[in-house]
Amino acid sequence: MYGAHDVRVEDVPDARIIEPTDALVRVTRACICGSDLWPYNSMPAAPIGNRMGHEFVGIVEDIGADVRSVRKGDLVVAPFLWSDGTCEFCQQGLHSSCLHGGRWGGTELDGGQGEALRIPQADGTLVRLPVGPDHALMPSLLTLSDVMGTGHHAARCARVRPGVIAAVVGDGAVGLCGVIAARRLGADQIILLGRHPDRIRLARQFGATDVVSERGDAAIERVRALTGGLGAHSVLECVGHGEAVRTALNIARAGGAVGRVGVPQEATTPDVQKTFFANVTIAGGPAPVRAYMHELMPDILEGRLEPGRVLDRVTTIDGVPDGYRAMNDREAIKVMIKF
Amino acid sequence: MYGAHDVRVEDVPDARIIEPTDALVRVTRACICGSDLWPYNSMPAAPIGNRMGHEFVGIVEDIGADVRSVRKGDLVVAPFLWSDGTCEFCQQGLHSSCLHGGRWGGTELDGGQGEALRIPQADGTLVRLPVGPDHALMPSLLTLSDVMGTGHHAARCARVRPGVIAAVVGDGAVGLCGVIAARRLGADQIILLGRHPDRIRLARQFGATDVVSERGDAAIERVRALTGGLGAHSVLECVGHGEAVRTALNIARAGGAVGRVGVPQEATTPDVQKTFFANVTIAGGPAPVRAYMHELMPDILEGRLEPGRVLDRVTTIDGVPDGYRAMNDREAIKVMIKF
Repeated sequence: MYGAHDVRVEDVPDARIIEPTDALVRVTRACICGSDLWPYNSMPAAPIGNRMGHEFVGIVEDIGADVRSVRKGDLVVAPFLWSDGTCEFCQQGLHSSCLHGGRWGGTELDGGQGEALRIPQADGTLVRLPVGPDHALMPSLLTLSDVMGTGHHAARCARVRPGVIAAVVGDGAVGLCGVIAARRLGADQIILLGRHPDRIRLARQFGATDVVSERGDAAIERVRALTGGLGAHSVLECVGHGEAVRTALNIARAGGAVGRVGVPQEATTPDVQKTFFANVTIAGGPAPVRAYMHELMPDILEGRLEPGRVLDRVTTIDGVPDGYRAMNDREAIKVMIKF
Repeated sequence: MYGAHDVRVEDVPDARIIEPTDALVRVTRACICGSDLWPYNSMPAAPIGNRMGHEFVGIVEDIGADVRSVRKGDLVVAPFLWSDGTCEFCQQGLHSSCLHGGRWGGTELDGGQGEALRIPQADGTLVRLPVGPDHALMPSLLTLSDVMGTGHHAARCARVRPGVIAAVVGDGAVGLCGVIAARRLGADQIILLGRHPDRIRLARQFGATDVVSERGDAAIERVRALTGGLGAHSVLECVGHGEAVRTALNIARAGGAVGRVGVPQEATTPDVQKTFFANVTIAGGPAPVRAYMHELMPDILEGRLEPGRVLDRVTTIDGVPDGYRAMNDREAIKVMIKF
């Protein structure tokens, strides 16, 4: 990505192993993320492109001398951040705050929307998949790299548990995975706040019981009406815009929790007094998806969760620029890249 | 209170029972609260005074026909909000969001800084004290009405547990009780952020292991230096001003929690992006002190907790206006009124 609306497919030097803790992975599937659309709409033009992509599945082509957990030929999924797996935060399951981890792509590292990557800290980062690279469940397994784990993180941070009323703000891929996660954790009533008919349809199939398509105060009132006037116990904020955050904070019930995974686009949070007086908890952040992979994978392998259905368009590497456009124009929920 | 810096002691009509769920309580001890200083410094002049005071112990003089849990002659402590004890929120222990509860004082109800009060929802509100009205532990028992329970709420919301590093922002009565609560819940290291020598001395006696008296960024850096660069697991925000909130959010470790009990004086919270990227949880609000009374009282009765030491000045009802002044001038931490 060289700037807003400027995504190019280019040849770059081959990825290669540098550190003994590295692996080399040839990508078989990747995706474009809703969060990739922030720079797609706002990045200033740059002379050096940013390598893009942080969600991918691939085959291990080579490993460094210290790598123990994966071998050549393994099919692996990577989380959207790499991590050492051993630091204080990784040990607590907060791999997204790894002291020696980092992001994919940019100008320093390889990106997932490319043919191959050097994987730093391979042992702490990669997770083996017990299937072949063209398995029918591949789209769903690919979502473990980000959106399914992120929806799960929103649900966990919002303290979804059996019997609660959950509200999911946002009908993008993460919001839809939030619906899946809320249902999986036992929510009784799941209110989706969204406006796109195709996404609403999918959300209902995933378990949404109610849909609120109003905006702003009208949305808040509608959720209150659906919850006996009290609001939702658990609110999953899956957007990050100020208006969505404001809605999320205002539909939480006293004593409830807002799990936020939408990257906040403003430096401050509004209505913080209201949440204070209601003892509403605000939790969440970048999902430690690495920690959730082993928890969620069996449900995908055994057919109980189908998050791969959010990947409603498939393209090749040459189609990536148009994939960005399609997601930005809301023509596609989420685009999968098949290598 | 008729306005900023205008507190008067006046005769008002006698408190009396109106509803069958009411009790009539004659106050034996009360206090002035740090939160009373907000209107003391900012209330516009009003033709009708606001009755003040929400922390008190007293003797039940009479009960309505439906009251079951207290009798005439009982010594009782009241929480800083009254509550029915039966609604959905009270049943969860969130009495501060009682659907049929409310605040003391104002222009509608009696205030605790007076000789007697009508107690709405007496069964859900009052808790009996198993001692006489002049017992030596009375100051500590009186703090169950607010500051001790509020410090405990901050510690709970900040997820203080054995072995953590806790940081307490604010050296007022609530902050000092936060130190007591953090120690009681097992914090290993307790960092007090405060600047008043008398309060710091008391905090150290209560269990503070470190004191940070810098402000702003210097305070943040100092806490980081004291915590191996990572910040505190548990931050108790006991002030509410924007600068204190900003400090609290910036000294929390990734994956940590900020328990906020200082009433936010600004409508928005700053640095919310930083807390997002660190997965910091922001929790708290008005403490459900009614829910905590039974948990904390034995520790006071058995001498393990001495929160009453924050009450460092005693006055009579005639001394209340000067008590406000003394607290506002930081001459006293907290003033007890003896009737």
